[in-house]
Amino acid sequence: MVGGGQLARMTHQAAIALGQSLRVLAASPGDPAALVCADVRIGAPDDLAALRELARGAHVVTFDHEGVPGELLRALEADGVPVRPGPDALRHAQDKLVMRRALAGLAGMPEYVEVTGPADVEGLAARTGWPVVLKAARGGYDGRGVWLLDGPDPVLVARLRDAGTPLLAEQAVAMRRELAVQVARSPFGQAAAWPVVETVQRDGQCVEVLAPAPGLTEDTAAAAQRLALRIADRLDVTGLLAVELFDTDGTPGGLVVNELAMRPHNSGHWTIEGSRTSQFEQHLRAVLDYPLGATAPTAPAVVMANVLGAAEPPAMPLDERLHHLFARFPDVKVHLYGKAARPARKVGHVTVLGDDPDEVRRRAVLAAEWLATARWSDGWSAHAPEVASA
Amino acid sequence: MVGGGQLARMTHQAAIALGQSLRVLAASPGDPAALVCADVRIGAPDDLAALRELARGAHVVTFDHEGVPGELLRALEADGVPVRPGPDALRHAQDKLVMRRALAGLAGMPEYVEVTGPADVEGLAARTGWPVVLKAARGGYDGRGVWLLDGPDPVLVARLRDAGTPLLAEQAVAMRRELAVQVARSPFGQAAAWPVVETVQRDGQCVEVLAPAPGLTEDTAAAAQRLALRIADRLDVTGLLAVELFDTDGTPGGLVVNELAMRPHNSGHWTIEGSRTSQFEQHLRAVLDYPLGATAPTAPAVVMANVLGAAEPPAMPLDERLHHLFARFPDVKVHLYGKAARPARKVGHVTVLGDDPDEVRRRAVLAAEWLATARWSDGWSAHAPEVASA
Repeated sequence: MVGGGQLARMTHQAAIALGQSLRVLAASPGDPAALVCADVRIGAPDDLAALRELARGAHVVTFDHEGVPGELLRALEADGVPVRPGPDALRHAQDKLVMRRALAGLAGMPEYVEVTGPADVEGLAARTGWPVVLKAARGGYDGRGVWLLDGPDPVLVARLRDAGTPLLAEQAVAMRRELAVQVARSPFGQAAAWPVVETVQRDGQCVEVLAPAPGLTEDTAAAAQRLALRIADRLDVTGLLAVELFDTDGTPGGLVVNELAMRPHNSGHWTIEGSRTSQFEQHLRAVLDYPLGATAPTAPAVVMANVLGAAEPPAMPLDERLHHLFARFPDVKVHLYGKAARPARKVGHVTVLGDDPDEVRRRAVLAAEWLATARWSDGWSAHAPEVASA
Repeated sequence: MVGGGQLARMTHQAAIALGQSLRVLAASPGDPAALVCADVRIGAPDDLAALRELARGAHVVTFDHEGVPGELLRALEADGVPVRPGPDALRHAQDKLVMRRALAGLAGMPEYVEVTGPADVEGLAARTGWPVVLKAARGGYDGRGVWLLDGPDPVLVARLRDAGTPLLAEQAVAMRRELAVQVARSPFGQAAAWPVVETVQRDGQCVEVLAPAPGLTEDTAAAAQRLALRIADRLDVTGLLAVELFDTDGTPGGLVVNELAMRPHNSGHWTIEGSRTSQFEQHLRAVLDYPLGATAPTAPAVVMANVLGAAEPPAMPLDERLHHLFARFPDVKVHLYGKAARPARKVGHVTVLGDDPDEVRRRAVLAAEWLATARWSDGWSAHAPEVASA
């Protein structure tokens, strides 16, 4: 796996069960996966020699990020290495303009335009009204590379163009909420979808995932799954595909594609405990061309909440925070990535399962906030009389 | 963790989620845990220098087997290293005579006698009748170190004595079935029990674990849990304790202690998917003195079946067997240990969850047998018309 982040770290956990050991190409020995994997190579994802060394003797090469240039993947393929997803599929997750063009006629999309100068942005706004979303076509994530423009900003556009950033502008879609649907597809062509989830964003970053998406009609859920399966098939995706959607009106026709990712994805972390097959195991099954695993949920309601580095790091050490969390919520599942906390950095996540979606969500949010900040946002105290019933 | 077997391998998976990385002392680089852990030391469990090197900088030293001599653990403790379970607890899992003596008055037990010569065995048989079970007090596992004697066998007893094997003889208990109960206990003194399971043995080796034990009365289940908690407390166990029991008549009074293990145990593999907290996570929580996790089951019926190396290795490679298994049973969870198959060797296990205990068991047994032998014992064929409904 190219990349040594938390996705590779959790993929290694799944690989162990399958009798495999994940070899990772990490940027640094302190990367989340490099800390726990037996077979770690240190190198850059755009260094062909490092990629070739990684691929030597491996069954297949896959990714925990979109940072490998397509021409290097083509070079690996020319060496005879199976690369999954392949470069022709992956470029749709690497370049939002390529993705938008490929999905024309296949999926609901915001109106968009390639931006070569300020006039393109203003031309779009003339049709859709302000605000308009300006995006870097490549390299953005977690809110980076995205600018919400309330009116013309020729200085910003010119600055980005001068920096060589390929740009597009999109209609700011009026929506009820964001959804995500994950599917896996194998080289054999088998595909499987998980239940559609709601993703809750804050400052452009996913903070919670609610599985299944509360109140989604069966029709809309099925339409979202069919859409993702159609995209996976049309783009010849192998491995996982996450389709991020805007839910504009709750109907199948109101689903609008926001982004694609072709790898395990934050919107699928809930599957580790919440589905019969986790996204990490499924990704391995797909890229190894095994038959795919069952995607049935294991509980009526599952909520994943990200642990994001606090603006002000708490004085209480993480280990001590973990003690208090476990004491209050013996059923909350914790996943820590071995990363130093920096503001808004994803350093872990928690997952809660249960019958009541609101209660499950309440507990997940409390747990994640506690781990990040050492504060219980409901004012709970270990010395309060509620301790016995918590 | 001292030991690099499958227990350490699966403990590493749990450690990753807790933000830890397990350091293992493995006998060889090809050991199951050594293949997947980032921090591997090669050495013998009775080499104090290797143990000291393992312990350097670690939070705590724990075990995936009972093979570390108590005096070496005492030396580590004298160095200031937390050893959990400690040597005074662990000797009850290392020596069956020590265990029998310690449990006197605490638990139902078979009648037994220390064997210094053939007369001891015959003396026991005079009271209990034949057959009598002769056991090595130390070092036996998976049916090794156990001999069922239908009558006097002075030659065997003398040979074992001459080889320096400390021996005991036990009444062969007439029983309905074998049960196991697992509990965890932390240094703080918190303890938690999982549901009582039935263990199914073949040739002295565990082949299936049924969770919860079918048809067990609430009274007997509660008695078994209380018994294990009492033993953990009395012996000052830290970490996991597995108590193997004979169920002689289905009543609380008919529970007889067979063996103890103080580590994650084969009878608890079902907890990976079948309980809110797996035995591996719980063992780490216990030895790290974290509050313990919830032990609630995640499904009404869970069955674990061991994949044991076949007497005749199948021609079909394991990877291909895995393909067929996944194609037939997309919901079966597989855990492979990275071990070469030798007859009767545990090379992996499968776990199935569901509502109907008989159906769950049927699928688990079929899956494990298929992986071991490349034969479906129900005659199923991938080309049969049932394929669509499988």
